[in-house]
Amino acid sequence: MRLVDPLLQRGVRVYDISFWRSTPDEPLHRLGREIHYPPVIDVLDPYILLVHQGMIESLFIEDLRKRGYEVRRNTAFDSYSVCEDKSGPLQVNCRANVAQERKTILTQYLVGCDGAHSRVRKSIPDAKPLGLSQQSVWGVLDGELVTDFPDIWSKTLVYSQEHGSILIVPRERNMTRLYIELKNGPRADRSQLGQEFVMQRAREIMAPFSIQWKYIEWFGRYQVGQRVASRFCDNHLRAFLAGDASHTHSPKAAQGMNTSMHDAWNLCWKLNLAVRGLAKPALLASYEEERRKIALDLVNFDYEHANQIAGGDAEALAENFKTNVRFISGVGADYGENAINMVEPQAWVMGEAKPGCLLPPARVTRYIDSNPVDIQLDIPMLGQFRIYLLMWDVHQSRIFLDTFCQAIASSDSLISQLSAAASISYTKQPRAPAPEDIYLRPERYTAVSHLFTFALITTMPKSEIEIADLPPLLQDSRWTFYLDDLPAAGTVTATTPPIPSAAAPDVVVGRGSLCTNKWLGSLAPGEVAIVNVRPDGYVGSVGRWDASVDDVAAGEDAARWLDAYYGRFLTVPGAGVAPATTAASAAV
Amino acid sequence: MRLVDPLLQRGVRVYDISFWRSTPDEPLHRLGREIHYPPVIDVLDPYILLVHQGMIESLFIEDLRKRGYEVRRNTAFDSYSVCEDKSGPLQVNCRANVAQERKTILTQYLVGCDGAHSRVRKSIPDAKPLGLSQQSVWGVLDGELVTDFPDIWSKTLVYSQEHGSILIVPRERNMTRLYIELKNGPRADRSQLGQEFVMQRAREIMAPFSIQWKYIEWFGRYQVGQRVASRFCDNHLRAFLAGDASHTHSPKAAQGMNTSMHDAWNLCWKLNLAVRGLAKPALLASYEEERRKIALDLVNFDYEHANQIAGGDAEALAENFKTNVRFISGVGADYGENAINMVEPQAWVMGEAKPGCLLPPARVTRYIDSNPVDIQLDIPMLGQFRIYLLMWDVHQSRIFLDTFCQAIASSDSLISQLSAAASISYTKQPRAPAPEDIYLRPERYTAVSHLFTFALITTMPKSEIEIADLPPLLQDSRWTFYLDDLPAAGTVTATTPPIPSAAAPDVVVGRGSLCTNKWLGSLAPGEVAIVNVRPDGYVGSVGRWDASVDDVAAGEDAARWLDAYYGRFLTVPGAGVAPATTAASAAV
Repeated sequence: MRLVDPLLQRGVRVYDISFWRSTPDEPLHRLGREIHYPPVIDVLDPYILLVHQGMIESLFIEDLRKRGYEVRRNTAFDSYSVCEDKSGPLQVNCRANVAQERKTILTQYLVGCDGAHSRVRKSIPDAKPLGLSQQSVWGVLDGELVTDFPDIWSKTLVYSQEHGSILIVPRERNMTRLYIELKNGPRADRSQLGQEFVMQRAREIMAPFSIQWKYIEWFGRYQVGQRVASRFCDNHLRAFLAGDASHTHSPKAAQGMNTSMHDAWNLCWKLNLAVRGLAKPALLASYEEERRKIALDLVNFDYEHANQIAGGDAEALAENFKTNVRFISGVGADYGENAINMVEPQAWVMGEAKPGCLLPPARVTRYIDSNPVDIQLDIPMLGQFRIYLLMWDVHQSRIFLDTFCQAIASSDSLISQLSAAASISYTKQPRAPAPEDIYLRPERYTAVSHLFTFALITTMPKSEIEIADLPPLLQDSRWTFYLDDLPAAGTVTATTPPIPSAAAPDVVVGRGSLCTNKWLGSLAPGEVAIVNVRPDGYVGSVGRWDASVDDVAAGEDAARWLDAYYGRFLTVPGAGVAPATTAASAAV
Repeated sequence: MRLVDPLLQRGVRVYDISFWRSTPDEPLHRLGREIHYPPVIDVLDPYILLVHQGMIESLFIEDLRKRGYEVRRNTAFDSYSVCEDKSGPLQVNCRANVAQERKTILTQYLVGCDGAHSRVRKSIPDAKPLGLSQQSVWGVLDGELVTDFPDIWSKTLVYSQEHGSILIVPRERNMTRLYIELKNGPRADRSQLGQEFVMQRAREIMAPFSIQWKYIEWFGRYQVGQRVASRFCDNHLRAFLAGDASHTHSPKAAQGMNTSMHDAWNLCWKLNLAVRGLAKPALLASYEEERRKIALDLVNFDYEHANQIAGGDAEALAENFKTNVRFISGVGADYGENAINMVEPQAWVMGEAKPGCLLPPARVTRYIDSNPVDIQLDIPMLGQFRIYLLMWDVHQSRIFLDTFCQAIASSDSLISQLSAAASISYTKQPRAPAPEDIYLRPERYTAVSHLFTFALITTMPKSEIEIADLPPLLQDSRWTFYLDDLPAAGTVTATTPPIPSAAAPDVVVGRGSLCTNKWLGSLAPGEVAIVNVRPDGYVGSVGRWDASVDDVAAGEDAARWLDAYYGRFLTVPGAGVAPATTAASAAV
């Protein structure tokens, strides 16, 4: 008996991509096959998981329901207006139910996830959809094929010089999706581009292979219109746009739902902190900075498979594909420098933990129960920041640690003040619990603070250290004490040669690198590093200190550095404006 | 977002074991820690998964329900009798509902899973529980601890020379289970051995560590009585015993539910084939042979942790532990030679695929969609046998394969006749479907036969072979065509040094071995091997042929060998007695 995650069970995993081509001189033939996510793309799950979008949606809806929230779909947005008192609630005018009853809702924030024709977008001054459109028309067919074409279980690009291109994508329930280019399709007369026409075009492109359908579950047709809104929020940082409301593009790279979820993911933790009065304006402002860049990247990222294979040069094709695939995978969605992504002026010998980038995956051993874990996933995402302390030897760094922990626990530390404010806020408005929390134990990660989970990563062996050896703050963080003793075999990449570091002399070069070396490049024996990770899993900042000369001074400096970093975008309520809380506020 | 199997999410994974000891001269101290399943234990998931037994039960009950079967608990077994016509149904006398109404059920087979005091056992002549009892008394406490003892998240053995032993096992929902030895417990006066007494004893053993309970969810007490029934079935092979009805033993090795599930697992596929009229008596007879041996192994396997640590020699302790742990893991549950486990007289250079043993885990690439899969799990268990053909080069072995496939497809082949009979049987009485079959596609594995799934494993690269190059029978088995190109890093074990074989010259020795080499030791360039795997995942037989001299003769011989193997325990209905089918028959 081996159970698996229902999404994996109900989806299809695609590991490779296949390229085919025909010209009037050459019949259809395979140009080559590539691994879709080669090792150079450093992801934990190196495949495309194809699942019905409805499954993903129902996961979110079910999770909300378990936590006591229902998605209501009976109310249409009409317009909104800002109070005269700018800090007061927004007034949202809606029409509810079939009768289109007028209704007014007061809310502190408004997020427009209302699609390509977004009315929220139209209500935000200056938020104009900027067109970057292409005029090609594509047909989409979902159904079960009967064919002698051999590659329907890979992602496959078929290019016919004469008839156009097809993108083949395997689907669940034995189905295959075909995206079919309707070359020179007469735009004026779309009535001709019916299902039969599209099926016939597919047969022509795929010839001499035969292609028939047992059944067709869905037929669609679309004209690619790529647009990015000029603004993703209003000037008051009260109304936001996400998903198709802020960007539309070709669905062929399967980035529509993914990018939209990342929009929401980027925004929700910032809104949570804003609602709790813990955010400076810079935090909400970073939403547009970060996500508009990604939307532009996505639209500029010219996934023109037809052009790619038109040349017919298998090698150039593979090269072109590799440059695109990092972006498709999601790990290439990097943010620039801003209030939360703080790049240090010093020229560190840097590893892969870079501000504005996702925390690189690594496998470590959880000290308390010796479980091997994926460190980037082990701490549940509860809207809090993660503060990782990395060092060779905990005993050797003990004075640094004691000094650091005392400094951030003192009443004049910002970390301490923010934690106190978060504690009050989460007492008033707790995280919405789910029944499985009794198994997942989120309280293990908030014992010290609702805003920060502290974690320790050391390369020393388990036999040389006890939890009782740690300062109290880290003893209270015992579920996030990690041993960096699992050099990741097979995940080493061409871009990240394992650095033969004195820190881990027993690691065979070429077998894989330790988390410490992967994240930091290297760490000297007396050094301590801190990696701040945002609630969405992106690295916020990286600092490092030589604790071998004056470890008290280094520990104090690290605490000050931490305060300085979080002070860029967090604030203690009462120190400035009173926190805004309304019934419609977002809970993380 | 990363979902996991609900059992993993709701259970606790234990990777290590810790040993502690105190004597009047030495305070309590840690003798050492060990990895619980070191690499020498070749399992895919090298940990103990601790889950509430009710969760496992509900998985089975839910699966039955989805397939249209309800477990009824309102009928108590009383006795059964055999018809005068020995091939007729059994008459089972029951009492139903609260009113204890007498009721008679007619059934072809009867399985007594009715616990330690089994009435079915008492109804089977000669099935006597043979005592191998120990007299120690143990208390069990489940609850949430408040303690400064550091190892409650490992499996931990604590031995106090003065006060006795404790076995600590982590549990879900933050709980800890303690098994507490009640040394010299006065058997006569069990009333003294109450919860308070047991808690006090635990505190004494754990001193100087403090141990308190936030709450205790469950307290139990038991006296170990180890017994194995003298018979696991009746002489007519119509009534069977499984689980506690056939064996009882100490729960400390956590083998109770596991061994009982394996009893049922061993029996159910044999019953399915018997009900369909496809089994010779030898098949059902093998149940007692195989499972009674395991029950005796289990009872003889003296998991006496108290004695183990009494010596206090950490090295001897570790050694003793290692010899036991293979059995606990389940991979050590080996069956002897019998009708279904056919050991060849020839002295093969054998690998780890041994008749009577579980198919060793290996990772390969599924040809059709390039998915890396665990080959021992990839083919869903549908009650069918798996026939793996292994070779270097499919083109080179093509004549062997053609001859072999033609021979087993011919009407005088037993394989062919059995498949035809199975086809009739599964048309009359199909496998009970579940809604998720639409995703899992069981029909991919029964396209050729309901009784046999054929699979091909080759070390050649994907670029050199197409599905169209295979004989038709193997083209129809396209979902079980595997590329042996993933040498398993990290699963290589001390007992299985990777054999530097000419078959895979590019595999770095020490990195891991290919499936072919792991299963077979080695395979010569012109050789073809067949591994027959039983419906329960155990290897049935292994054959190999040199196809380089006379490939036609070799292919024909392989087909004859296959017929000979399956002829030992399978039969074509109509060739002998008519198949027995009743409403109460088991469906797989």
